[in-house]
Amino acid sequence: MLHKNDLILRAATGQPVSRIPVWLMRQAGRILPEYRAIRNRLSGFVELVRTPELAAEVTIQPVDILDVDAAIIFSDILVIPEAMGLPYQMVEKKGPYFPTTIKTMDQVKQLKVADPETDLHYVLDAIRLAKKELAGRVPLIGFAGAPWTVFAYMIEGSGSKTFSKARGMLYKEPELSHNLLEKITLSTIAYLKSQTQAGADLIQIFDSWAGILPKSHYLTFSLPYIQRICQAIENVPVTVFAKGAQFAMPEIGKTSCATIGLDWQMDIQYTRQLLGPEKTLQGNLDPCVLYASNQDIARCTRKMIDAFGTQRYIANLGHGVYPDTKVDAVKCFIETVKNYEL
Amino acid sequence: MLHKNDLILRAATGQPVSRIPVWLMRQAGRILPEYRAIRNRLSGFVELVRTPELAAEVTIQPVDILDVDAAIIFSDILVIPEAMGLPYQMVEKKGPYFPTTIKTMDQVKQLKVADPETDLHYVLDAIRLAKKELAGRVPLIGFAGAPWTVFAYMIEGSGSKTFSKARGMLYKEPELSHNLLEKITLSTIAYLKSQTQAGADLIQIFDSWAGILPKSHYLTFSLPYIQRICQAIENVPVTVFAKGAQFAMPEIGKTSCATIGLDWQMDIQYTRQLLGPEKTLQGNLDPCVLYASNQDIARCTRKMIDAFGTQRYIANLGHGVYPDTKVDAVKCFIETVKNYEL
Repeated sequence: MLHKNDLILRAATGQPVSRIPVWLMRQAGRILPEYRAIRNRLSGFVELVRTPELAAEVTIQPVDILDVDAAIIFSDILVIPEAMGLPYQMVEKKGPYFPTTIKTMDQVKQLKVADPETDLHYVLDAIRLAKKELAGRVPLIGFAGAPWTVFAYMIEGSGSKTFSKARGMLYKEPELSHNLLEKITLSTIAYLKSQTQAGADLIQIFDSWAGILPKSHYLTFSLPYIQRICQAIENVPVTVFAKGAQFAMPEIGKTSCATIGLDWQMDIQYTRQLLGPEKTLQGNLDPCVLYASNQDIARCTRKMIDAFGTQRYIANLGHGVYPDTKVDAVKCFIETVKNYEL
Repeated sequence: MLHKNDLILRAATGQPVSRIPVWLMRQAGRILPEYRAIRNRLSGFVELVRTPELAAEVTIQPVDILDVDAAIIFSDILVIPEAMGLPYQMVEKKGPYFPTTIKTMDQVKQLKVADPETDLHYVLDAIRLAKKELAGRVPLIGFAGAPWTVFAYMIEGSGSKTFSKARGMLYKEPELSHNLLEKITLSTIAYLKSQTQAGADLIQIFDSWAGILPKSHYLTFSLPYIQRICQAIENVPVTVFAKGAQFAMPEIGKTSCATIGLDWQMDIQYTRQLLGPEKTLQGNLDPCVLYASNQDIARCTRKMIDAFGTQRYIANLGHGVYPDTKVDAVKCFIETVKNYEL
């Protein structure tokens, strides 16, 4: 499909852009009163994820309200374990919770490889609806969690500062770990292929818990599975966002992804120099800058762009926008990117 | 005082050792049934911290039971905000909670610089009692939080995955931030000096939340205050443990500390090569290794020592030992270190 605004696709594929494209991780969410109005009508977050009409509506909201250069489908990385047979709940103010967690190889064997058309049809329906409503205004980003990050929740059962159970499993049961990662990877590949068939124009892989693994474990238990996914998704550009994994940037740079997301702590110059002109970079303003004055937001945003350069670059935050961020601050960030002269 | 076992002091000051000294962060704590027995008699964690006889008793337990080469005084980094006028509670299974947090410069002005002899006498009493009971068997480590980490709790009010309020304060109110960090630093210097006068033989500074700051902020809002503390503590060796701050290792190496703690993700060879023979290194086994078999624990421990070398080195974990770790696993780690042939 042709897009009226294809800046993000051009940047991701290394074509010259007339201005820098910009979007925000978690742009469809609690920062927008329009989102909260819909969310408050429902029983919970999971109901919103499973209702395609409403998921599509909140996906479009930031395009209408913030004028960002891409939409990202409203969903959650934990729909994959659920489709594999391990359901989760989203507990208000606490985050995800799995009533059952994976402890044994028998449990791993009982999990199935997700069939997106039956188990995740609600996400695909939401993508089709969002594409229809977007009508080519901007591209739509699909996404999934990296296998290690999804694994971490399936073992730990909830968010955690240390994910010590999940990390411990890698030492205690490497074979079980690889078996589970394999099943998650096959599920994720099928899921992301279905997303692109339903209309997703780019794919982002979120490795939210990359940053708690020692490097040797990251290179053994996370990155190879990410690379398998990158290789399997051939028709659209893939972004890898491995939060906290500056230590593995040389190896991430060797995957076949088009774009690499940087978190707010990563070193822009080091990464650009390391990866050269073959990769697009995305990121990485500290979301906390958006608590400052508009003058400071504009200053920090321009400084960030000075470091990234204007080509092979997609402006974003270095983490999902925090829920208590003011919409005006987000708009100031977006405007500053758009007004940056090439 | 002369110690029967002064291995850790020799290692910290760069003298040759006949075998590698070993202790564990959080060794005095929930892993020991003997600790839990005492803890369960009390109303809570804070009561234990404030009762010198019992704090001294749990300080000694790991020396008796695990045969480690150092004791560390049982206390908490948040006694400093309390002594400054901002009390905290420890909520079971949730962690620290401050009923009031710092939001304004007026509040900062109302805080006092802690006077250890009056406000923190219970810690000093515990140190004196522990020293007496240790009777020179092994050295006693005193400690405090790094000013940034203490600041983070005083602004945020509790633990947090993002510490977005605390990080946001650095952008919004840099002057307030520096004022508060200054007061925490003065309090900490007075506190640590009192600890050494009461008998602490080494000091460790815990910068538990170093790893969430962008490098420029770390170098502005954290490390200069740590250096002030290192310079002020002249009579005993100081260890800096800045969790997650591999990115600032060159700068940490330039502080006047004797020993640098490595977390489980930090690169041993890189750090050793960077810092050369002027600093002692401490760490850094992934605490999750202790969930594996004794055979794997021994193998991973030996591999770690191979990388660190045997001199200018103190064996430890790369994070506090996790509460559900088996005592036998801890003993296997300690034995493996002690049996490593120089």
